[in-house]
Amino acid sequence: MRAAIFKGPRAVEVGERPDPVIQEPTDAVVRVVLGCVCGSDLWYYRGESPHAAGSIGHEFIGIVEQAGADVRGIHPGDLVVAPFIYSDMSCPHCLNGSTLSCVAGGGFGNGTVDGGQGEAVRVPLAGSTLVPVPGSGHPDAVLKSLLALSDVMSTGHHAAVVAGVKKGDTVAVIGDGAVGLSAVLASRRLGAERIIALSRHAERQKVAREFGATDIIEARGEEAVHAVREMTGGIGADAALECVGTAQSIATAAAVARPGSTIGIVGVPHGEVPFTEAFFRNIGWRGGPAPARIYIPELLGDVLDGTIDPGRVFDYETDLDHIADAYQAMDERRAVKSLVRIGAL
Amino acid sequence: MRAAIFKGPRAVEVGERPDPVIQEPTDAVVRVVLGCVCGSDLWYYRGESPHAAGSIGHEFIGIVEQAGADVRGIHPGDLVVAPFIYSDMSCPHCLNGSTLSCVAGGGFGNGTVDGGQGEAVRVPLAGSTLVPVPGSGHPDAVLKSLLALSDVMSTGHHAAVVAGVKKGDTVAVIGDGAVGLSAVLASRRLGAERIIALSRHAERQKVAREFGATDIIEARGEEAVHAVREMTGGIGADAALECVGTAQSIATAAAVARPGSTIGIVGVPHGEVPFTEAFFRNIGWRGGPAPARIYIPELLGDVLDGTIDPGRVFDYETDLDHIADAYQAMDERRAVKSLVRIGAL
Repeated sequence: MRAAIFKGPRAVEVGERPDPVIQEPTDAVVRVVLGCVCGSDLWYYRGESPHAAGSIGHEFIGIVEQAGADVRGIHPGDLVVAPFIYSDMSCPHCLNGSTLSCVAGGGFGNGTVDGGQGEAVRVPLAGSTLVPVPGSGHPDAVLKSLLALSDVMSTGHHAAVVAGVKKGDTVAVIGDGAVGLSAVLASRRLGAERIIALSRHAERQKVAREFGATDIIEARGEEAVHAVREMTGGIGADAALECVGTAQSIATAAAVARPGSTIGIVGVPHGEVPFTEAFFRNIGWRGGPAPARIYIPELLGDVLDGTIDPGRVFDYETDLDHIADAYQAMDERRAVKSLVRIGAL
Repeated sequence: MRAAIFKGPRAVEVGERPDPVIQEPTDAVVRVVLGCVCGSDLWYYRGESPHAAGSIGHEFIGIVEQAGADVRGIHPGDLVVAPFIYSDMSCPHCLNGSTLSCVAGGGFGNGTVDGGQGEAVRVPLAGSTLVPVPGSGHPDAVLKSLLALSDVMSTGHHAAVVAGVKKGDTVAVIGDGAVGLSAVLASRRLGAERIIALSRHAERQKVAREFGATDIIEARGEEAVHAVREMTGGIGADAALECVGTAQSIATAAAVARPGSTIGIVGVPHGEVPFTEAFFRNIGWRGGPAPARIYIPELLGDVLDGTIDPGRVFDYETDLDHIADAYQAMDERRAVKSLVRIGAL
């Protein structure tokens, strides 16, 4: 089959991979319909984090082609959403909500296990991992939104959930990338009354507004902090959602969070965390990679009935032949998030 | 009046301070019955944190001598518990549970405002700050437990509350100082089923057992982590309570916490926090200085009916004349926490 192959920094090319086959009775083979490029794939692309040579990509939706003998609940022909890792949903960590720590789990597109940026994927623990989509004939916009559940929307939702966003809250979202925009949408969905998005890009501001942002702050750093404090009567936000991971964005999140609140942090921390300063204001930190498998069923219903349209974060699209363009567009900040059309529905 | 005077590192002496008088109609003057030395006072004593010359001490119980015209709910003759800071309980931060960030609040014993290690204290915002103790003729053990509510027990309780300790949980408490022991007691009170205390001192282990510890680990570092993991079937603790603040204790807390759990941290962080490592396991951090004023009413009832006896953390006592001994005993680790008997009931 054809698939994106990571060959090293700035070298992602379409190439050949063995056709995936059932290896374990709990496997399924999924033919990929839509894949995409994650912000975290860019670290590998930029050489900022290591990635094994080989398959890449961890977000996809597709059609089940084959299911092993022990796969329950998933059948050939099903349209499925894949969370960005596979998990057994029965170990102590999964049962406790931490699918990322599943004792039998693992990731897609790590060089050896098939990635989502390819024509097909062998999905281990398929019955507990894949989420079937009810209905048929879903329009393209819905398919894109389903793809967003695979990682980016679940991640934005995670930020809002762990920060405890609730009805009536004032939320500040740091970061206007695809995750930040998803966090805006998730906050609206959870009932936030005021959503302050920090964004200096007109196009992203537009999506943020559509997703529910009530206020936009274009400033950064100290000036942004001052603006959020002014907007909140000097109190700070009930919840600050950190969706970037740089020292500046982390510091901004801490400074705009009201005393006693918990920062939802989903940007992988690449900078210093003002931990002790936050401690004295009783500011907490929760977050990490999202347990997408747990969130998808709940978010899926809202996608299908049109309540949310997280697929709006895709603002560039191409096909597998042009996978390099998908990366380049994001690397050059011409795209928030690149969609890759891979197979027919 | 006579009071402890901080003159510089290793120089706390009894000396003269002006008799406190009502300055604002919201003030009360409290005659101190019992005071004590806090672990945080030791930082000043050891020269590790700065402290202005003058009054010191922030934990006390006493008898109201005078109440200003605008003081509600507090009357001369009342036995009261003072939380370690004063607060108005009506600003947005107090109403949100963060009394430490009270817009009108402040601390005791900071060089100018009277400290709890003295014969009397002018308490600002007395009506909202002081908690009157119902009944009379309380035995000495109860008075010591009431004093513990002023800071140490409320702080241990805070660690357990922010970590979300609930019925049936397995809790690991890092630190066997007065706060750690209080965290054990608080965890038992909140229904934890298994409480693993890390302690290598026989006397402290004894108190920990009395307070509800079901398991004691004498090892530290990697060996302690291994032991907690073994005890929890490789899963980790449902809640880790960090009650020290050193790099090693913080690292231990992070390593023994199960994925997805929130560390309750009340030891002022003096060392590196393994933030990114914890992030990938979805380990959260919450804590800071405790909102004692909010916790005291709830804990008070349990002290009065004998359910909890947090005063057991005091294992050394002296009087105001020997205040230097109270510090020295803790500095030399001969005492977990020093009680200072100051006035008659």
